[in-house]
Amino acid sequence: MPKTFANFSVNHLPKVEEMMLGFVRKYAEEATLAQAMTYSLEAGGKRIRPMLLLATLDMLKQPIEDAHYQVAGALEMIHTYSLIHDDLPAMDNDDLRRGKPTNHKVYGEGMAILAGDGLLTEAFHLVTQANIEPDVKVAIMQELALHAGSAGMIGGQVGDIEAENQEITLDHLASIHRRKTGALIMFAVNSAALLAQADEATRRHLSHYAEQFGIAFQIKDDILDVIGDEAVIGKKVGSDEALNKSTYTSILGMEAAKEKLNEHIHDALASLEAIKVNQPEVDTALLVELINKLR
Amino acid sequence: MPKTFANFSVNHLPKVEEMMLGFVRKYAEEATLAQAMTYSLEAGGKRIRPMLLLATLDMLKQPIEDAHYQVAGALEMIHTYSLIHDDLPAMDNDDLRRGKPTNHKVYGEGMAILAGDGLLTEAFHLVTQANIEPDVKVAIMQELALHAGSAGMIGGQVGDIEAENQEITLDHLASIHRRKTGALIMFAVNSAALLAQADEATRRHLSHYAEQFGIAFQIKDDILDVIGDEAVIGKKVGSDEALNKSTYTSILGMEAAKEKLNEHIHDALASLEAIKVNQPEVDTALLVELINKLR
Repeated sequence: MPKTFANFSVNHLPKVEEMMLGFVRKYAEEATLAQAMTYSLEAGGKRIRPMLLLATLDMLKQPIEDAHYQVAGALEMIHTYSLIHDDLPAMDNDDLRRGKPTNHKVYGEGMAILAGDGLLTEAFHLVTQANIEPDVKVAIMQELALHAGSAGMIGGQVGDIEAENQEITLDHLASIHRRKTGALIMFAVNSAALLAQADEATRRHLSHYAEQFGIAFQIKDDILDVIGDEAVIGKKVGSDEALNKSTYTSILGMEAAKEKLNEHIHDALASLEAIKVNQPEVDTALLVELINKLR
Repeated sequence: MPKTFANFSVNHLPKVEEMMLGFVRKYAEEATLAQAMTYSLEAGGKRIRPMLLLATLDMLKQPIEDAHYQVAGALEMIHTYSLIHDDLPAMDNDDLRRGKPTNHKVYGEGMAILAGDGLLTEAFHLVTQANIEPDVKVAIMQELALHAGSAGMIGGQVGDIEAENQEITLDHLASIHRRKTGALIMFAVNSAALLAQADEATRRHLSHYAEQFGIAFQIKDDILDVIGDEAVIGKKVGSDEALNKSTYTSILGMEAAKEKLNEHIHDALASLEAIKVNQPEVDTALLVELINKLR
């Protein structure tokens, strides 16, 4: 039976979710806080980041262990906190996320801020408890902080806010999204390479794959914001335009954006082929399927 | 010349501040984000947490090194992020902090939320770079996440918000403040004991000192909120009453609160004496002076 992402997900995603939810419930002493934190974790979503991490480990022939679910769960917790804070009235002011009321709509703004702070802090806490060699664990936490922090995701979010109501260049847009969405996707792949202690060449090809993945992911997101189905994307169509945000489609136009998306997918696939040149036995099927989903 | 806290501070505090500010400036890629993060770090304050950490290391005969400034700086960055978020309109809605406009008053709510997120994330990032044995470093990051997270400071802040406009018992109040203010004070002392690899008995006595310190610190804060000098405390007197918050003075009355403060200081001093029973050569002068400052 060929390996498919659907099968892989069925096996592994529930364990990532158990790991996150169990950990949050164990340490959140106040009932309301635990509810606010788990509400957004349970709101689902594609779980693309943790699954990308686990699929990369699988490609690198690592049997998936609890420690991997812990790092994958920490990554999804960081992603989830960023959504809670981004949705706040002081930022994107969204009422709906993944088809459900946003965290602050249910728990109030103060609690949503604290639930986000809690998820961010507990993400690092979760990694400290994973059964990983201390030096590798420190390297992973360093990579996580670098990509989630002010040189990564947070810097990208600031850049995004500051670019509202402005005409920006394609390079500027790319720099924002390399950090805002690209950084955590990069962490997903890089941390798997660290955990598997992959060789230098493989790490380089994987990083290139992740970089292309991040850009393709954002272009697709921008396209769906124009032509998507609200029931599928779980939020209002046209929200970028409403916030007067520059996007790949607003700068390039729809057709050129679609072409650019295909180019980045093509580049990502080429990186996987490059890994196979030296290691023909490697099974890249999952990572191929994941990037092709963005078409 | 006897060792005084003033001399100790003059030697070490500038290095903690350099470490924090240099690190934040290095990684915050967006200029506004860097400004918002450093604005609150530079607003000063008593720096009681990092100095308690360094004073404990000094008592344990550790020469103070860069790694220690890094952990102390990370602790102050976590404390600072918590102040930025607590001051937001959705929480305590404070316009002034340490006599200066609060972060969101200067940079707006969205940026203040992100500056807080950035300081929290970069705090962990800073510790990952410290020159500490990987297993000790992981232990310190675990201790930091535990005390700053939902079982610690964040849980305490949630408890505090939920107790507004309610009559609560002294035990409930103590449970809130053991986490809200006590947890980071506990981390200051415990992380120093981890860094110095202190023996079990010394750690226990130090933990007891930190616990008493945390309670005494909060009682003093509550007393100053009633009878303090606005110019000295840097915020409006009477803000607890305005928010209808239960405090040690509102529950016990001023005289009994002062008495309780003295009891906890006495207990903290007894813990230091207990360390000297087995190690008469230990110089507890700085920790004695620090707790006596709360009288």
